[in-house]
Amino acid sequence: MNRFSFNQATAKYWPLPDVIEGCVTAGVRWVGLWREPVDEYGLARSAALVHGAGVGVSSLCRGGFFGADDWLDDNKRAIDEAATLGAPVLVLVCGGLTGRPLEAARARVAAGLEALVPYALDAGVRLAVEPMHPMFTADRSVVATLAGALALVAPFPPAAAGIALDTYHVWWDEQVFPLVAAAGDRIACVQLADWVLPLPADVLLGRGLPGTGCVEFPRFLAAVTEAGYGGPIEVEVFNAALWARPGEDILHDTIAAYEAVMASSRW
Amino acid sequence: MNRFSFNQATAKYWPLPDVIEGCVTAGVRWVGLWREPVDEYGLARSAALVHGAGVGVSSLCRGGFFGADDWLDDNKRAIDEAATLGAPVLVLVCGGLTGRPLEAARARVAAGLEALVPYALDAGVRLAVEPMHPMFTADRSVVATLAGALALVAPFPPAAAGIALDTYHVWWDEQVFPLVAAAGDRIACVQLADWVLPLPADVLLGRGLPGTGCVEFPRFLAAVTEAGYGGPIEVEVFNAALWARPGEDILHDTIAAYEAVMASSRW
Repeated sequence: MNRFSFNQATAKYWPLPDVIEGCVTAGVRWVGLWREPVDEYGLARSAALVHGAGVGVSSLCRGGFFGADDWLDDNKRAIDEAATLGAPVLVLVCGGLTGRPLEAARARVAAGLEALVPYALDAGVRLAVEPMHPMFTADRSVVATLAGALALVAPFPPAAAGIALDTYHVWWDEQVFPLVAAAGDRIACVQLADWVLPLPADVLLGRGLPGTGCVEFPRFLAAVTEAGYGGPIEVEVFNAALWARPGEDILHDTIAAYEAVMASSRW
Repeated sequence: MNRFSFNQATAKYWPLPDVIEGCVTAGVRWVGLWREPVDEYGLARSAALVHGAGVGVSSLCRGGFFGADDWLDDNKRAIDEAATLGAPVLVLVCGGLTGRPLEAARARVAAGLEALVPYALDAGVRLAVEPMHPMFTADRSVVATLAGALALVAPFPPAAAGIALDTYHVWWDEQVFPLVAAAGDRIACVQLADWVLPLPADVLLGRGLPGTGCVEFPRFLAAVTEAGYGGPIEVEVFNAALWARPGEDILHDTIAAYEAVMASSRW
């Protein structure tokens, strides 16, 4: 449980102070935060809340979207917010095609990273490129594989640029385990969610708690450990049925799912 | 137009005799057929129909599903049907996990191919492993990338085992153009469909006619030509709104989409 992190997106409608109180009560030491609810509660207030509660922020979601007009300013703000919250990692959802061919859109991501890396280094925040499932390539992230994410961050120091490994997005890749091994100290963030069928009408909300689908969690957890990752393990599940439940119940079931997965793992 | 092939799945509810008559009237020389409508019309009758009309069958869909109990007999039947129809290619949708981890499910595909290759060679039918979009990995095909498909067919002679390249399934892969070049004489079947947003509630039916989405068709067509492929080019679009229209209109618009894509291409 020392490494478990509750990503607040798993309980989308649970107010931030309640999330923190719930985590403290349950003995959860880490949370993953999102910019919108932090902004809604107030950045300084949010930082004071988590610091006062003794809860660590494992990551902030999200920067990226390099095709947006204000991408540079917005990503700098996101880095500042992560620093204020004490989050060592800013997860980047790198944006879709927005009118460009795939290669050109990926080149835009590379250029965006290059522009942000010095700023991130100064702030002490690590950028984490998140490969997203290829069903989101057109509209959310042209980074669709772990191989593609690793290639994008390779030119930069590992302290400035790593990858966010979400099992939901990468489990289908026959190369994923060799790639996790190759990722080594580029692994900046680990998130668990399961792939469950059928896909819902809104495929964004199709994730399941670990253990409810087909992802091989024991193998993933062993692989990231063998690759040298020893940081927090977030559970981040977007699921409309889960979101409809009371926050305490969601947290309870998320902890239970995490513990069951850890108990069946080799580490 | 000499290379255009109308895959009958693009007009799912158009009866086979009407498809063939429509193609003859429109000067279409190739069709892609599916086993279910062929079976419904009768295999011998279907073969006589296409042969009498002078229409070539570019491919038959589909074999595969190596996790099914009767996979061996069913795939042998599919090969026989392709031979009877004069289809040089049987497209394989290789099946999902059906309870196995990904690697084990892929091993099952490899074993299935090994069992079928001699039978396919005897029948003069080429097996075409179709990499399918990773949103189908769990339930339809554990072969999610062109790289994965090429690795599976590599042990077998190119005359027995190739790949089916459907733009819809592979466009998102940042390695797709180098992989098409590497595929060379393994390219057994080329199918065009576009990726359009938003994804519909049933993601199986989310495809668009070429030119309506974000796929780079000119680059794909140049790539398969440079790889040495000179066979028919199928258009195969699963789209509920398209299916609701009269068959003649679907064929007309499919030809128009194909011609527009070809006119904008480098070959």
